[in-house]
Amino acid sequence: MVNTLLLPELREMLADDNQAELVEFCNALNPGRTAEFMEGLKDREIWRVLQFAEPDRRAEIFGYLDEERQVAMLDQNDPAEVAQLLEEIADDDRVDLLQDLESPRVDAILPLLPVDVRRNIQRLRSYAEETAGGLMTTQVAMLAERLTVREALDELSRQSDELETIYYLYVVDDDNLLRGIVSTRQLVSSLRTPDLTLGDMMETDVVVALVSEDQETVAEKVERFNLLAIPVVDSGRQMLGIITHDDVIDVVRDELTEDAQRIAAVEPLDDGYLRIALITLSWKRGLWLTILFIAALLTAFALLHYHDVLEQEKYRWLVWFIPLIISAGGNSGSQSATLVITAMTGGEVHYSDYPTVIRREAVVSLMLGVFLSLIGFVVAAFIAPSVQAATVIPLTLLSVIVAGCFFGASLPLLFKRIGLDPAMMSNPFVAGLVDILGIVIYVNIAKVVLG
Amino acid sequence: MVNTLLLPELREMLADDNQAELVEFCNALNPGRTAEFMEGLKDREIWRVLQFAEPDRRAEIFGYLDEERQVAMLDQNDPAEVAQLLEEIADDDRVDLLQDLESPRVDAILPLLPVDVRRNIQRLRSYAEETAGGLMTTQVAMLAERLTVREALDELSRQSDELETIYYLYVVDDDNLLRGIVSTRQLVSSLRTPDLTLGDMMETDVVVALVSEDQETVAEKVERFNLLAIPVVDSGRQMLGIITHDDVIDVVRDELTEDAQRIAAVEPLDDGYLRIALITLSWKRGLWLTILFIAALLTAFALLHYHDVLEQEKYRWLVWFIPLIISAGGNSGSQSATLVITAMTGGEVHYSDYPTVIRREAVVSLMLGVFLSLIGFVVAAFIAPSVQAATVIPLTLLSVIVAGCFFGASLPLLFKRIGLDPAMMSNPFVAGLVDILGIVIYVNIAKVVLG
Repeated sequence: MVNTLLLPELREMLADDNQAELVEFCNALNPGRTAEFMEGLKDREIWRVLQFAEPDRRAEIFGYLDEERQVAMLDQNDPAEVAQLLEEIADDDRVDLLQDLESPRVDAILPLLPVDVRRNIQRLRSYAEETAGGLMTTQVAMLAERLTVREALDELSRQSDELETIYYLYVVDDDNLLRGIVSTRQLVSSLRTPDLTLGDMMETDVVVALVSEDQETVAEKVERFNLLAIPVVDSGRQMLGIITHDDVIDVVRDELTEDAQRIAAVEPLDDGYLRIALITLSWKRGLWLTILFIAALLTAFALLHYHDVLEQEKYRWLVWFIPLIISAGGNSGSQSATLVITAMTGGEVHYSDYPTVIRREAVVSLMLGVFLSLIGFVVAAFIAPSVQAATVIPLTLLSVIVAGCFFGASLPLLFKRIGLDPAMMSNPFVAGLVDILGIVIYVNIAKVVLG
Repeated sequence: MVNTLLLPELREMLADDNQAELVEFCNALNPGRTAEFMEGLKDREIWRVLQFAEPDRRAEIFGYLDEERQVAMLDQNDPAEVAQLLEEIADDDRVDLLQDLESPRVDAILPLLPVDVRRNIQRLRSYAEETAGGLMTTQVAMLAERLTVREALDELSRQSDELETIYYLYVVDDDNLLRGIVSTRQLVSSLRTPDLTLGDMMETDVVVALVSEDQETVAEKVERFNLLAIPVVDSGRQMLGIITHDDVIDVVRDELTEDAQRIAAVEPLDDGYLRIALITLSWKRGLWLTILFIAALLTAFALLHYHDVLEQEKYRWLVWFIPLIISAGGNSGSQSATLVITAMTGGEVHYSDYPTVIRREAVVSLMLGVFLSLIGFVVAAFIAPSVQAATVIPLTLLSVIVAGCFFGASLPLLFKRIGLDPAMMSNPFVAGLVDILGIVIYVNIAKVVLG
């Protein structure tokens, strides 16, 4: 039935209140796929379909819907049904969802949740977003080191419905201090020695995240050590929870998207591009656009400053090449800045590589500069009053491209060095600097060549 | 001992050939951490330390070293030792490493490997890079559906050293066709019903990757369905291997880094920024820089075209604002393009959202345009011959900013629509278009206002 199922049929089942088929629809497919099939339905239709699934299945399917729809459904449906659903959702996701609801709504839902769930919410809410604490789930297997392989498997089997991941067991002492870690892989390979204890087999050198640690540092550790999950501990090494690999992919995606936005001089958006309020979007763009604008205003003053020179007959043609010169410097600079920033985010380039970076940029910018200068020279030769005069253009282009690459590559490293976000500060700075510099270089080269 | 271990001590152990301590160093720590501790050693010192580890441990530690060092070590050491190491490395990583070695070196190593390993290498090499086949490992548990929970666990336990991941079991028939999937979590929760068969418990609606599928599509599926691994099948649904979550993080990182580079008009680098040959780097940058340069040359012709107008006394001051106007249009356009491109990569914006995007950009660009125009007007009022004349500047800025946002938001969607990579084509196009357009708009508004 299911593969050929279309929206009209799903709607018909709802209209007929066809319980048997709706229950089958909720159970026959992979929960992610069930969610995908319902994408064309209205929020309230999806909610009705979900009521035909068992509570844990319902929470699973719900988890695969768009975040926006999830929030809308929690906002609009019966608080008792909402509470029942929330109880089944993984605790880290639950807290994130509640954070997106208005507080009167949250106040209506919270009292309907069991007291232990409520306490868990309060605890998780106390950690800052974008830290390890803000990402972690507490639904993790913490076991004592005296348990044998057989006992540990039994315990896992008992708890497995409650746990976010069962692929690592965390071995803790009576005070919940983290002592070591055993992977389910180790447990399974030790099935033939069922009396071995967790203490015997645990790995004691565990890579951990501190609860207050920045989420990007945590993601880096998980990537570096190829982990499925990382335990989160407080400063006294008490085990608080874990962060799982899927949350890490989200962090990596967010981090790199933010980078790309910052490079183009947009303050990273906290929300989707289509969802964010227009006034917020204007603010996040306007901030940098204004800074860039003020930098560009300086070019007007620079040109004003040189107007005596530029209005002389023999200099007048220079004006036609101003946009070309400024854009050549800006474009080569933003290439260098972007390459250095992405290489820094990828962990490839560090401040100690500064001399290497500059040496390489020098070579590349000379090659690019010479090539573009030649094109520029050919064109200028036709437009300028004389071929000798035309040499102003290639000389300026070469200088501006080399300067653009130099500043583009240097500023991100320098900003990082003094503790600023390299992606946030560099492209606007590079653009501003190179614009002004371009004009100054241009006029001065012209003065020398044209006399 | 280990936490206080410093490089000099490690070097001393090597000098003394202190076997006991070196063996302990290789085994006491998490293998990732062992690799980290050795970062300061020379390649040949690391290789010597590695010889003190058991073969499988050695391969694990080796896997955490920088890729560049891995390749260098495989290149320089005794082929027999290299072959012994390669045998223990996961098959997908092994093929990637061999691809980085020169072919005489590969020819020296291959004959030293067991025949089944050699065959495996040949098979994996036959799949294109950047496809599912190019990422997958074949070291996966494929089991028959008649196996019971107990038998399956025994089988897993027997195979577990060989497998890349044991967190899903893939159920196949006698022809290796994929029938379903059982997670180790299900297996563990079914420990109390040990006679259940895999066929009874398997999930038959499995999310799969086709062997020829693009790696970005595969990564999207893994993210969307929160998988630890995805099975790779051929067109007849024969099971070939799996792709694990750590390879997916790498794909996501590469994809987004490429996006950021394309947005800044650099052809994505195939290699690290510090490692890539300078001539290749110049080519990858020069290609787009030249296209941008030629677009910018058109501005010179546009200005030349208007030179009769611009050289008149009452128009002459307009020249000072040319860089400002061009950069305002270009910057707002590149903001819009970057936001739309990142939202498309994140799966948020599709072509069907075009009307929404344009409506939103219209509002935002008007707000930004009005604000920046006001600043521009104030400055122009001081510089222009009269306040009335100064109105040319805000009118032009507003038009150029609105045009920049319109083209910036439209082109990526349009490019995607006609099958081009939106990130690759849009920023250069936006910049080029807006530069020329800016000059045309500027001169024409000036003609109307100044008469």
